[in-house]
Amino acid sequence: MLKTPVIVLNVKTYEEATGQKALDIALLMEKISKETGVSMAISVQATDISICSEKVTIPVWAEHIDPIKPGSHTGWTLPEAVKNAGAVGTLINHSEHRLKIADIDYCVTRAKELGLDHIVCSNNVATSKAIAALSPNFVAVEPPELIGGDISVTSADPDIVKNSVKAVKEVDEKVKILCGAGVKNGKDVKMAIELGSDGVLLASGIVKAKDKEAVIRDLASGL
Amino acid sequence: MLKTPVIVLNVKTYEEATGQKALDIALLMEKISKETGVSMAISVQATDISICSEKVTIPVWAEHIDPIKPGSHTGWTLPEAVKNAGAVGTLINHSEHRLKIADIDYCVTRAKELGLDHIVCSNNVATSKAIAALSPNFVAVEPPELIGGDISVTSADPDIVKNSVKAVKEVDEKVKILCGAGVKNGKDVKMAIELGSDGVLLASGIVKAKDKEAVIRDLASGL
Amino acid sequence: MLKTPVIVLNVKTYEEATGQKALDIALLMEKISKETGVSMAISVQATDISICSEKVTIPVWAEHIDPIKPGSHTGWTLPEAVKNAGAVGTLINHSEHRLKIADIDYCVTRAKELGLDHIVCSNNVATSKAIAALSPNFVAVEPPELIGGDISVTSADPDIVKNSVKAVKEVDEKVKILCGAGVKNGKDVKMAIELGSDGVLLASGIVKAKDKEAVIRDLASGL
Amino acid sequence: MLKTPVIVLNVKTYEEATGQKALDIALLMEKISKETGVSMAISVQATDISICSEKVTIPVWAEHIDPIKPGSHTGWTLPEAVKNAGAVGTLINHSEHRLKIADIDYCVTRAKELGLDHIVCSNNVATSKAIAALSPNFVAVEPPELIGGDISVTSADPDIVKNSVKAVKEVDEKVKILCGAGVKNGKDVKMAIELGSDGVLLASGIVKAKDKEAVIRDLASGL
Repeated sequence: MLKTPVIVLNVKTYEEATGQKALDIALLMEKISKETGVSMAISVQATDISICSEKVTIPVWAEHIDPIKPGSHTGWTLPEAVKNAGAVGTLINHSEHRLKIADIDYCVTRAKELGLDHIVCSNNVATSKAIAALSPNFVAVEPPELIGGDISVTSADPDIVKNSVKAVKEVDEKVKILCGAGVKNGKDVKMAIELGSDGVLLASGIVKAKDKEAVIRDLASGL
Repeated sequence: MLKTPVIVLNVKTYEEATGQKALDIALLMEKISKETGVSMAISVQATDISICSEKVTIPVWAEHIDPIKPGSHTGWTLPEAVKNAGAVGTLINHSEHRLKIADIDYCVTRAKELGLDHIVCSNNVATSKAIAALSPNFVAVEPPELIGGDISVTSADPDIVKNSVKAVKEVDEKVKILCGAGVKNGKDVKMAIELGSDGVLLASGIVKAKDKEAVIRDLASGL
Repeated sequence: MLKTPVIVLNVKTYEEATGQKALDIALLMEKISKETGVSMAISVQATDISICSEKVTIPVWAEHIDPIKPGSHTGWTLPEAVKNAGAVGTLINHSEHRLKIADIDYCVTRAKELGLDHIVCSNNVATSKAIAALSPNFVAVEPPELIGGDISVTSADPDIVKNSVKAVKEVDEKVKILCGAGVKNGKDVKMAIELGSDGVLLASGIVKAKDKEAVIRDLASGL
Repeated sequence: MLKTPVIVLNVKTYEEATGQKALDIALLMEKISKETGVSMAISVQATDISICSEKVTIPVWAEHIDPIKPGSHTGWTLPEAVKNAGAVGTLINHSEHRLKIADIDYCVTRAKELGLDHIVCSNNVATSKAIAALSPNFVAVEPPELIGGDISVTSADPDIVKNSVKAVKEVDEKVKILCGAGVKNGKDVKMAIELGSDGVLLASGIVKAKDKEAVIRDLASGL
């Protein structure tokens, strides 16, 4: 399982993080993670898992798995396939890729069977609590309206983080919690921890940055 | 574009064709394609595109692309990403991964923009004709009830092939046609060509075979 | 809110329960409910809510609402519209109409805003617990593999009922619990109550019965 | 089938057209249709079909049908149910409720089996042509980016109408064509006819108007 506190990057399907560019960011995170001792992981497109996982030592994750077993499922994302390609974990139910509740349950079960670490995303306190009832490794609360924006969830809506931590822990003490949306710098990371979370999940803050190295170093400085 | 007549293998998410096993089948097809001169292509899971495309010279395809441009689409399959990983073509609208009509149109447009060859799957004569109106490179007609079964579409329902060929050509002469479902041997391939199609799309016939090499050679003998 | 213990009928889209035939069943349930004092409700197709709600005094429910507010949502089921047509409650997330977790949360919130009673369906103990965290009025646990079958969930898998009751109550004492799938007679209903549930949700057991009156009377005898 | 040229109103799920308010608009259209001799139809929410169809003589339509037969489909819209409630036609594949291509084909087939008139919506020239290949009664082309806006498709993009008419007729002479998006007055309707279409499909232009009667009279004056 991810060593916490942790900074998890989701590169989405940004042009700036496809193929070799995903690997470049992964290498940068690996370098800074080694230098600073800060735990970091990167979640990349299915196509890019193998090239990244071969070349970096930080955890490489998938962005999604589908609720399926091996078989006739043309074009869907098989949990076994992402693991086989080198992923050690996966996002589940990201705000841009929401799943039915029975399917989240199934994906969490499949991830556990395969030893895949996993973060299930939620959109508010109620769904954070509901997801905690499925006992995933991590819940990551991200208010959809703040995703990709300029203000960090930790400033815009600190209560959603604090209350998600509380709600999740009430249901299952062992479930860890990340927060995300608008996270951009070390101050945001620091506040995320102060609000009781175990780290941050972010995307555009790094991927769209002109000076990615400076941003990653700044984020790491918050821990 | 695929040289026709052609044999296209879709490995789906079968355990027998994940990771190294996908590459093994691709290498086998490459060998037999070279020996026999028969045109062959393999469509693999997104996770396996890069490892296959690096190692084989036959066309490696994706099984699916999503109707998106680069951006915030966590866990979806970006056309640019499959191309970047080495895919030269992609299936679209497979019976196990059906798309809305506006999205098929968008995927065909995106595939053309990126120079990705593409096969759009249909399920009957009417949808073959409708898809032809979108001017894709290929239409592949596959009656869903015969997929994965023991009887080839060419025996079970030759009219669906003949009439799809006729309907597609009426709408757009340039669109090529494959057929699939239950295709297992050289006789089926031969009949597919006699019915006017430009080749076959198959999956379990090869992937689930005990002696894959024998099956591929037999299929090739039909051309 | 439904008076418990309760028998809730979901008529689905059965031909035997469309239009006037839905009303006939509703009238039958009303008659038997009055005679026996057993609490009953009927959930009908959106098209049939107004004709049923005008003519019967037992609660008429919708089978589904979509996670929307009034606006541009052609062909979707607006919570306000089912209420306006006379529904006093609605099923949410039925096994044949599953929703994303954020959408279940939104539908529960909308139902509460509008004063619509509601049952959220779950498929196992874990999802029962997760749904309870959203504080709906009712959770109804129905193992999908037993739906429409000949063996009642109360015989085939009593533990799923008992453990769902336990899990739901742990999360939120106020949430009531129904069970369903294969429920056909008074004995099944009796056992459902003994296992700790507040009633049953059933469909084909009544709708497909030759002698519907006899079946409804038998079911009522279990309470 | 709808008498053409025709004005078809889709009331969507607007608050201003739910329940009694849908009926009020239907009655207004009936009155003006009788006075002017202009063919008009209204497409309403499933919940409101029966109350409207009982009270007005203009054609009452559904906004959507799902690709199903009678059976276990909780909460979906059964073609038989909308017909039984009094609908004589239905929209299919509206831009806000898009369907997979195989499902459009199935819905058109089901509508024909049941004698339900039907309009299949398209979003551009290519999909208009593709849908025409399924031989529906009507295709209605509506560029999504203009829906709900202030500029009529007939002014903003007359070519999409003209070219859709041409493409549809090439594939199947018998298929009629409507256009929609931003249509608000008689001038827009007149231009729609001049561009070769058989009428208009509109929504907010009437539903959101302060003086609905004046708008409907103005629209009718275009024919």
